[in-house]
Amino acid sequence: MKKFMNSAATLAQDSLEGFVAAHGDIVMFGAEQKYVRRRELSPGKVAIISGGGAGHEPMHTGFVGRGMLDAACTGHVFTSPTPDQILAAIRETDSGAGTLLIVKNYDGDVMNFEMAAEMAIAGGRHRIETIIVNDDIAVERSARGTGRRGVAGTIVVEKIAGAAAQAGAPLEELKLLGDAVVAATRTMGVALKGTTVPQTTRETFLLGPDEMEVGIGIHGEPGRSRDKVTDASSIVALICRHILDDFGSLKGQPVLLFVNGLGGTPLSELYLVFGLARAFLEEHGVVIARSLVGTYVTSLDMAGISITVTQLDERLTHLWDEPVQTASLRW
Amino acid sequence: MKKFMNSAATLAQDSLEGFVAAHGDIVMFGAEQKYVRRRELSPGKVAIISGGGAGHEPMHTGFVGRGMLDAACTGHVFTSPTPDQILAAIRETDSGAGTLLIVKNYDGDVMNFEMAAEMAIAGGRHRIETIIVNDDIAVERSARGTGRRGVAGTIVVEKIAGAAAQAGAPLEELKLLGDAVVAATRTMGVALKGTTVPQTTRETFLLGPDEMEVGIGIHGEPGRSRDKVTDASSIVALICRHILDDFGSLKGQPVLLFVNGLGGTPLSELYLVFGLARAFLEEHGVVIARSLVGTYVTSLDMAGISITVTQLDERLTHLWDEPVQTASLRW
Repeated sequence: MKKFMNSAATLAQDSLEGFVAAHGDIVMFGAEQKYVRRRELSPGKVAIISGGGAGHEPMHTGFVGRGMLDAACTGHVFTSPTPDQILAAIRETDSGAGTLLIVKNYDGDVMNFEMAAEMAIAGGRHRIETIIVNDDIAVERSARGTGRRGVAGTIVVEKIAGAAAQAGAPLEELKLLGDAVVAATRTMGVALKGTTVPQTTRETFLLGPDEMEVGIGIHGEPGRSRDKVTDASSIVALICRHILDDFGSLKGQPVLLFVNGLGGTPLSELYLVFGLARAFLEEHGVVIARSLVGTYVTSLDMAGISITVTQLDERLTHLWDEPVQTASLRW
Repeated sequence: MKKFMNSAATLAQDSLEGFVAAHGDIVMFGAEQKYVRRRELSPGKVAIISGGGAGHEPMHTGFVGRGMLDAACTGHVFTSPTPDQILAAIRETDSGAGTLLIVKNYDGDVMNFEMAAEMAIAGGRHRIETIIVNDDIAVERSARGTGRRGVAGTIVVEKIAGAAAQAGAPLEELKLLGDAVVAATRTMGVALKGTTVPQTTRETFLLGPDEMEVGIGIHGEPGRSRDKVTDASSIVALICRHILDDFGSLKGQPVLLFVNGLGGTPLSELYLVFGLARAFLEEHGVVIARSLVGTYVTSLDMAGISITVTQLDERLTHLWDEPVQTASLRW
């Protein structure tokens, strides 16, 4: 697979520089280009910081801006940002109200964000809370091991916590709110084609011409089963059934339905999947109160989709609707 | 290439239904689902209608909304909408101020929009003007034949004319303005992988592992040359040089720089290309006054990019900046 890049080693940084150049009205680099931050911070507001490996664009930099994130730390492709990057972001965006870290549940990310938080707290000048996002129901819950991964639902957490922070919610309240959104959010994905990592330009796994990978993550990890490709209605029913089962029951419940593209799937197919998912869920008594369709949380050029459902209450709906001004979400 | 669809025959319509379901606050179907229109028209405003084959999503439906299009007519994949669809859109969105048609320069589109316009005018109740967009400099200008194709620059015309119409500009003025934007706009694209048409699930042309197609259109047409893939800087320089040559000179001129993804190229690569294009143009004395980066005018799942440059003056800049509320462009 060919890519538009000068070299695999510089792809992530070159892309970040282009991003900052394109959205200079909203974002800027932090000192020494260690992270991307809002150009204008809101004094007295809790700072919200997220981050992770490159290769998931527009997550997280595309969600830096008023009403969502204050800073995003990006590592190399599929590689956690360093504690040093995260610490710099904490120090430079804390306006005294403390910092909320939103971290996807991967060992490397959790470890590095934790290390940065400890260093910041040890200095005695920062208060920090952390939300671990683990919305991927393709991975079974278990007492041991890392548990469920953080995938597309991460941006739902970022949007809702971001709106509450913008409205002045204190750190402790944001921690409770973020955990509540994680608990109310389930995601599952399916891929028709694996991810091509720039260093190798080979796919991380190869699917036959009639195969799909069900329960795919966002790093080219294999999913929970490899099935024959079926029509879109069957794929959507398979995923939505897993999600409904995991919730227990959503009958009569209002939800946000979010259909996400994994990087190489055209928007036309995402809308098609959305229409089918909406119909399936409505047939099962779920109320689609809010919608989001787009390519937001990706795995490089993977052809695939994920479906995320967040159970809404009045407060979450209100926070979802609050204005947001980022490169990738804007209303 | 696998796709998320129930059948090739229903892909376009299924996708449209999902689109309308996802954006019911902005759009709705016209009568008999012949086209997609703004849910709330602005009385007394010139109606702006565009359209074309499916497979270019989010164009055109994603640009229906306040400050841009009033209606979009979509055909089957890479197939013009019928005069019947276009006529319905004209009749149902004309509030008395007339209708501006924005048409990409392809024989089928031009013919069907023209036929619809003639039928509408013959009825004696509609005033119509048409803008033909032909921004693709990969095709040589010539006295005979169809001439240059309409590609990504189309949405620049739609945005600027849409803002002027929203502000109350009369039909004759919009015709002059639209033609002026077309004249000020140049686009060129390059593909790393051809388009997979759903009916065949085969690529329209096959590129070797080290080949790229330069001057690609948005229907899987071959480009003007097949070259060895080079690094991104060289690709960007090649395209930008063609664009600058075609303009003659842009030294000291303010422009809109628009990097567009053709469907299968990740946003990270688009930002990388944007950063390089911006630097190249600035080195050549061009002033990047406005920017747009994203997957807006596509060719199904083609891996590729196009670069569009529109020369701006004070009025065009102001109209570009005016608020827009569509599914795919919003500020």
